[in-house]
Amino acid sequence: MNAPATFDPQAFRAALGTFTTGVTIITTRTAEGEPIGITANSFNSVSLNPPLVLWSLAKNARSLPAFSSERHWNVHVLAAEQEALSGRFAAQGSDKFAGVELDDGIGPAPLLPDCTARFQCRTAFQYEGGDHVIFVGEVLAFDSSGHAPLVFQSGQYALAARKPRTELRLAAPPPPECSYTEDLLGYLLGRAHYQMLDTLRRLLAGQQLDEQQFFILSILCIRDHLTLDEINAFVGYTGLKVSAETLQALQQQDLIACEQDAAGTERYVMTALGREASLHQIALAKAVEAEVADKLDAGDVMALKVLLKRLVAATDPGLPDLWAAR
Amino acid sequence: MNAPATFDPQAFRAALGTFTTGVTIITTRTAEGEPIGITANSFNSVSLNPPLVLWSLAKNARSLPAFSSERHWNVHVLAAEQEALSGRFAAQGSDKFAGVELDDGIGPAPLLPDCTARFQCRTAFQYEGGDHVIFVGEVLAFDSSGHAPLVFQSGQYALAARKPRTELRLAAPPPPECSYTEDLLGYLLGRAHYQMLDTLRRLLAGQQLDEQQFFILSILCIRDHLTLDEINAFVGYTGLKVSAETLQALQQQDLIACEQDAAGTERYVMTALGREASLHQIALAKAVEAEVADKLDAGDVMALKVLLKRLVAATDPGLPDLWAAR
Repeated sequence: MNAPATFDPQAFRAALGTFTTGVTIITTRTAEGEPIGITANSFNSVSLNPPLVLWSLAKNARSLPAFSSERHWNVHVLAAEQEALSGRFAAQGSDKFAGVELDDGIGPAPLLPDCTARFQCRTAFQYEGGDHVIFVGEVLAFDSSGHAPLVFQSGQYALAARKPRTELRLAAPPPPECSYTEDLLGYLLGRAHYQMLDTLRRLLAGQQLDEQQFFILSILCIRDHLTLDEINAFVGYTGLKVSAETLQALQQQDLIACEQDAAGTERYVMTALGREASLHQIALAKAVEAEVADKLDAGDVMALKVLLKRLVAATDPGLPDLWAAR
Repeated sequence: MNAPATFDPQAFRAALGTFTTGVTIITTRTAEGEPIGITANSFNSVSLNPPLVLWSLAKNARSLPAFSSERHWNVHVLAAEQEALSGRFAAQGSDKFAGVELDDGIGPAPLLPDCTARFQCRTAFQYEGGDHVIFVGEVLAFDSSGHAPLVFQSGQYALAARKPRTELRLAAPPPPECSYTEDLLGYLLGRAHYQMLDTLRRLLAGQQLDEQQFFILSILCIRDHLTLDEINAFVGYTGLKVSAETLQALQQQDLIACEQDAAGTERYVMTALGREASLHQIALAKAVEAEVADKLDAGDVMALKVLLKRLVAATDPGLPDLWAAR
């Protein structure tokens, strides 16, 4: 616990940063009509009736004169896809509005498109706030788009992983002596994976294919002309070991073909029929994903993908890059 | 776009709610010394030097007189585990402090334990804010714990799924004609699952077990006395079909045993050796998870689990409850 005299500014900033926020861009125009805008996360709502919102601006900000004299400004709650825009408006000097097509607002302040929500305001109060000025604005107009919002926490961009409104249990609580629970990450990952695959498996059965053959086709769909060993280098981490017989079965179904390269090495390629079967599988995988996004909300699916990518990167056994150019 | 005269309060509230926030509990004492506290997400930082923070309180709040007259109050940035506390301090009437052991603060205001961060403040300014009063407080002391913070967005609790500081790609960008990309949810789930399982597989090999036998032991570890059909009902969604021969192999390794119930039905139970093997597997699964939590941060792992549970619930083909009491 620190007393103000000994406040470590970095520690204080870090403690404040644990309070999660959205990210906004706030825009106005200078007296000369030049559009200006800054990234801010000090926004918050104040009052419903009258409709008021607030944010704070550093007293040494170059944009302070403009915001102090121009009474109209717009708050843009940024969408998850607008991280780059956030970075651009947080930096100094560049032409922040280059290439941005503005929407028409009710006042002179620039109105950015594709945000989660927008509040068009006029200054109601300017309050003293230490090294910042607190701007309280009356909201004259607002709109929102349904885009998942960008989140900021402890200096990092983030997405919200929303909790269910009531506690979600997949199964009855385990007996106390049972150390295998539904909260085990490995269980949740496995169950999620196999349930997603389950739908696909029905299509595979119709195509007279098993999971192993599906993996092989997926790999050849991304990268052709692979040897049996190369296929196994890509698929090995799943625990499957592809045999020459499995490849022969796919050849007999005319889904893949075997070619000899200049060195006489056998390499496998997709046939037109194989490519078609693979496209059907990808289409179904995408349909399953769309169904999930419908139930979970698009923002939550984005958050899930971010976390899965980080997990995959953190547990990567050093797999070769399937998509790398050759 | 709405003009203020036609503001739909519900739509306005919903648009404001898209701005993500943390969740705080703000406490003080009445003139009589009674502890009071409310849940608020209108908190934000204002100034570093002097250290100032702000939040807004409805003018019709029952706690307004106390906050207006008592100059000391504490802001608690709630941790993910404090969702129930948030609910309790958001509700009216109950004894909010019942069972809460308070920490010692520098002033009279109650100081709650186990938060992500805490700011002990004294009122610097009280500002007019429509139907709310804006309290600006000077921070006299603060601390933070490293607990992952609770998040609030569009009326729902959430956790932050933090993005990597630089864009994370697992592989080179796919060629434009390739519709199979690393962003496919099914690919990410499969890769995450198999990579996590990969570590476990090395232990299984040492135990002379394959994946199928691992699944069987896991199921019998949770629920004993199952028939072959019942085992298959639990494991079927993984695509595996357990045969009598597989069970016989486990019997020969003395990991499971077969018993006849009163009706003469064959039911499988774990042996002491099987239970031991299973406990080793669970211990390793937990160690793998701890390693991941180390790399991803505990809060992100919590967020991942929430999302995976929601995904599993959304794609559940109607699996029987493995943990249900009988």
